Amino acid sequence: MNKDVNVDALFLGPKSENRVFYKEMMEYAITEHMHWRSGFHPEDSALVTPHCQYQPDFRDTLYRTEDILRDLSSRLKTKSVPWFSPRYLGHMNADTLMVSHLAYVMTMMYNQNNCAVEASPVTTDLELEAGRDLCQMFGYDVGKSWGHITSGGTVANYEGIWVARNLKSMPLAMAHHDGAKDLVAGLTEQQLLNMKTSDVLDLTDELKKRGIFEQVRELSARGVGVEPGKLGKFLVPRSKHYSWMKAMDILGLGQEHIVPLDVDSNYRTDVKKMREITFRLMEEGTPILGMVSVVGTTEEGSVDAVHEVVKLRQECEDKYGSSFYIHVDAAYGGYVRSMFLDEESQFMDYDALVDSYRSKEIIPEGVVWPKRDVYDAFQAMSEADSITVDPHKVGYIPYSAGAVAMKDSRIVDLISYHAAYVFEESDEQDVGDKPVMLGSSIMEGSKAGSTAAAVWAAHRLVPLNISGYGHVIGRGIVTADWFTNKLATAEPFVVQGRSFEVRPLMHPDFHMVNFTFKELGNDSLADHNSLNQRVYERCSYASGRAYSKDFLTSSTSLTVDEYGDTPSIYVRERGFDVQEWETEGSVYILRSAVMTTFLRDEVRFSQYWNNLRDIFTQILTEIVDEENKKSLSHSAA
Amino acid sequence: MNKDVNVDALFLGPKSENRVFYKEMMEYAITEHMHWRSGFHPEDSALVTPHCQYQPDFRDTLYRTEDILRDLSSRLKTKSVPWFSPRYLGHMNADTLMVSHLAYVMTMMYNQNNCAVEASPVTTDLELEAGRDLCQMFGYDVGKSWGHITSGGTVANYEGIWVARNLKSMPLAMAHHDGAKDLVAGLTEQQLLNMKTSDVLDLTDELKKRGIFEQVRELSARGVGVEPGKLGKFLVPRSKHYSWMKAMDILGLGQEHIVPLDVDSNYRTDVKKMREITFRLMEEGTPILGMVSVVGTTEEGSVDAVHEVVKLRQECEDKYGSSFYIHVDAAYGGYVRSMFLDEESQFMDYDALVDSYRSKEIIPEGVVWPKRDVYDAFQAMSEADSITVDPHKVGYIPYSAGAVAMKDSRIVDLISYHAAYVFEESDEQDVGDKPVMLGSSIMEGSKAGSTAAAVWAAHRLVPLNISGYGHVIGRGIVTADWFTNKLATAEPFVVQGRSFEVRPLMHPDFHMVNFTFKELGNDSLADHNSLNQRVYERCSYASGRAYSKDFLTSSTSLTVDEYGDTPSIYVRERGFDVQEWETEGSVYILRSAVMTTFLRDEVRFSQYWNNLRDIFTQILTEIVDEENKKSLSHSAA
Repeated sequence: MNKDVNVDALFLGPKSENRVFYKEMMEYAITEHMHWRSGFHPEDSALVTPHCQYQPDFRDTLYRTEDILRDLSSRLKTKSVPWFSPRYLGHMNADTLMVSHLAYVMTMMYNQNNCAVEASPVTTDLELEAGRDLCQMFGYDVGKSWGHITSGGTVANYEGIWVARNLKSMPLAMAHHDGAKDLVAGLTEQQLLNMKTSDVLDLTDELKKRGIFEQVRELSARGVGVEPGKLGKFLVPRSKHYSWMKAMDILGLGQEHIVPLDVDSNYRTDVKKMREITFRLMEEGTPILGMVSVVGTTEEGSVDAVHEVVKLRQECEDKYGSSFYIHVDAAYGGYVRSMFLDEESQFMDYDALVDSYRSKEIIPEGVVWPKRDVYDAFQAMSEADSITVDPHKVGYIPYSAGAVAMKDSRIVDLISYHAAYVFEESDEQDVGDKPVMLGSSIMEGSKAGSTAAAVWAAHRLVPLNISGYGHVIGRGIVTADWFTNKLATAEPFVVQGRSFEVRPLMHPDFHMVNFTFKELGNDSLADHNSLNQRVYERCSYASGRAYSKDFLTSSTSLTVDEYGDTPSIYVRERGFDVQEWETEGSVYILRSAVMTTFLRDEVRFSQYWNNLRDIFTQILTEIVDEENKKSLSHSAA
Repeated sequence: MNKDVNVDALFLGPKSENRVFYKEMMEYAITEHMHWRSGFHPEDSALVTPHCQYQPDFRDTLYRTEDILRDLSSRLKTKSVPWFSPRYLGHMNADTLMVSHLAYVMTMMYNQNNCAVEASPVTTDLELEAGRDLCQMFGYDVGKSWGHITSGGTVANYEGIWVARNLKSMPLAMAHHDGAKDLVAGLTEQQLLNMKTSDVLDLTDELKKRGIFEQVRELSARGVGVEPGKLGKFLVPRSKHYSWMKAMDILGLGQEHIVPLDVDSNYRTDVKKMREITFRLMEEGTPILGMVSVVGTTEEGSVDAVHEVVKLRQECEDKYGSSFYIHVDAAYGGYVRSMFLDEESQFMDYDALVDSYRSKEIIPEGVVWPKRDVYDAFQAMSEADSITVDPHKVGYIPYSAGAVAMKDSRIVDLISYHAAYVFEESDEQDVGDKPVMLGSSIMEGSKAGSTAAAVWAAHRLVPLNISGYGHVIGRGIVTADWFTNKLATAEPFVVQGRSFEVRPLMHPDFHMVNFTFKELGNDSLADHNSLNQRVYERCSYASGRAYSKDFLTSSTSLTVDEYGDTPSIYVRERGFDVQEWETEGSVYILRSAVMTTFLRDEVRFSQYWNNLRDIFTQILTEIVDEENKKSLSHSAA
């Protein structure tokens, strides 16, 4: 018996193919809970009697309940987007795991709150276990690291910068405390502000031994606030998610202390420029509060060279004695690291990896994945201080489930709190090195235990390695490769004598495929953008009911503000003059995250592509017809 | 036909009494979604075929799914706490609304993310509608205010202080901008830091007219950070939730800038001392960043005199020309405001209110509620700048659903962001004055649309006024009153010649009942605390499976650190010497939020109380037996 998951058995399916199983399990989840209720103190009589239930006002309330649910169902069916279908290739959305749905519903009936163990005697444990799974996936030492669930990547990013900020302020706090200043004696302010994460945490151990940890902590940023700029600059790629801007605002650091890093032709952080900026700051004596690497940019799915960031930090430590905090924003790409792990969670050698892909039929001959630098980047993630990852993206878990993982669990003590009413003494146990009072160790307070159950159950069924998520994610990667190749080589679409050529932005790092249609002979980037915007409108909810669409995608604009001149590469490749780019300053693209698992079969994909060609032709025909009508009415007028 | 809700028809019930309806509706929710899938492009063939489904590895994955769900069910049934039962009177937990369960599950299948409309074409609207419901409940002008869902009260509190901080820093930012400085010309720094909320927002309107709003905003705290202490002090009652400490840390303001406000004998903010501190700060010229009033303290359910805070602010404006921001933390008590509203959402006169309670059979003769100052406090909430409220507490909605409401929606512009990829131009519409791109206008990013559906559906079925939540919450208030009276007058429990007297901490402001058992003749507060801790252990999950318990409650310690000497009032009432309090510094109490709706019937409650007396006798007997055994083994040794 193959121990690997069967991907088709994980989802309800585009045609509700697995409906019998789904319903049976839902019935099980609900009935089990009902038995639990009725079995509690059998001697208690029912408090709602059939007689009450028969009264008109009782029935009236039930019928009103049904009215509301029917109204809701109607709204959902009218306006929702069919993520489940392979016809949807847009945002990071696809069908989600049955086991997570079922675990969520089952657990919701017990209504646990992971803020405190007392309110979640079952699900706090599940969250800790899911957190350990993620740490293991990232190559962290499970006994020393710490991970937990957040509402999403945004909050996970906040938490990353929160710990970085409080950590950075600790050495200065030590210098201001009589019982601690000897620990940092002789260090300049610059040295205090540039200590290695592990060195700071080792010092906190010493503070704990001396019994003055809490006192010193009160002198850190949490107690006394943050002097603007004092802690230095925060380096974030221009491809960054806007949550980083929010983060600098919320954390009181000020957005002006972000230093944006340019991207290269692959929409990854430009390593050369990153190094220049870093060295310049080092030479100037400006501290670096932290550096963000993105694994899976929101718009392009590009993977920053995390290994280069790790290497750069080492160089700075060697050359300047200055270190910096590294946070990896892998909200999108985090789960892809399971593609690299064997069943013992070991990061595989490149060659062995490719062999396994073949033998497990994850990636067929002809599809070259991963690129070597993508491989290196994923490997180096284990050196990051903290990592954001969204189970509700490539974990195929329903919204909302984000997560953050931290390499050294001691860092949690820099942000932890306790409150009497939620924390009974009997709860003050630690599981390994991890605090179990989640509400006092994380940014958020109340949080659904059901979410933890959904993530936990997914990880149990679909291991975070090549035999589990490897199969699930692999399907999207393969399909994305085929899709990119079809786009790169497709014959132009000819409509009423006009020719439209489709071309991808680039070959993706994993499964985000961007592309545009270009009318051959058109020199105007503005017209080009307008054409693609019109295609988008016909391929989305934007022009009416998504349910009636033949193909659905998303779109975005790559602008000079965000990307500098990188998009001009594509613009010129598409045959536009560079001046067009300089005038417009943006290129509008169609954006398809290929997360569907249902096109992993070359024959099936060929049929899909042929169908898609027809759909594109139809859409372009509509656009041309519309233009003709307009110009006709213009000339008539 | 009575238009009021029938409360018994809202919940599954302690014995799953409404199981037939619940299952039927769940089946409806799921089946409708399945039809939606299979009806999408009927011409598409199924992608998972019966042949595939019959393969061993396919079936293996399904069986493994079932194994995991069975394991989860077993864990949940073993360790969960039976919130649904009237035998549970502890944290703010009870049975939750069927309509919210069903709406959640139905919507989860469509997997919407309220970060952006594109990802939630249905549920962003539902969230906005639910937010308006809350604004209306709080007496805000629905056309000018703004409310939305958060993961919980903690994040809602963060958001309150975030807007307050950015608002406070705006006048200074204007003074630093050449195009804006005329707007604040002649004002001293102290005046700049003490402007009225509405005055600052009027100035932002002017900045928008001049087209320099964004520029000035970049000079506020969000852009340049926060100089520690600059924005002044943050006044929070000692009864505060620990999230306020976290908030000051996270927002970069520093905890040392919290000024704790003492509580009075009712565990409400001491108005006299609050006034003294406020006037002292005014005289000193220290700005007040904000003032928090708590409506429903976590431990006692006490309601701060919000009307006194509003009055105080007016006095400060009149006398010193200095204003301050008011945030009401009504995480626990917010929904109780629906008890005061008629069916047109008007805050009722006191006498009319009491008449309605009688005619609608919400509060019977003999139960005096609300106290006059509680009434005044709830009325004054409409003057607060922002309010935290938790639908997952007294909204009877499953975790996790918090919310925040803001009186003046213009304030959102001080924290708003945009990101290209989630915000298509066609989405840039406003609904009234409210931005619809939630992710760019709130702290969190991704969030489950299902949560919005759960809150929305609850509000549709159970109106936020006397005819809806009035009935639901009224039941707990009445039962809490009966419970308190029983505790206040109960004969001592006599066990093996020893007498134990139970007494409430005080008469609650709504439905949190605290109490302790005292052994008559015992002079030691330490022994008293130990006794009650042992009672708690037998009434909770702390000493083993909650399911096997006869009665379940929660507990807390009222300490001198948090409450000053207020708890000594109760300690002395219980017959302890004041020195005992001074030595111990805390009193351990049992804590029962009476949220159950199933004891609203005097006959039923009498039976319940008689049964509870037996349970308490049994528990005290176990404790006495254990002591006897211990002393026996000591004397044997």
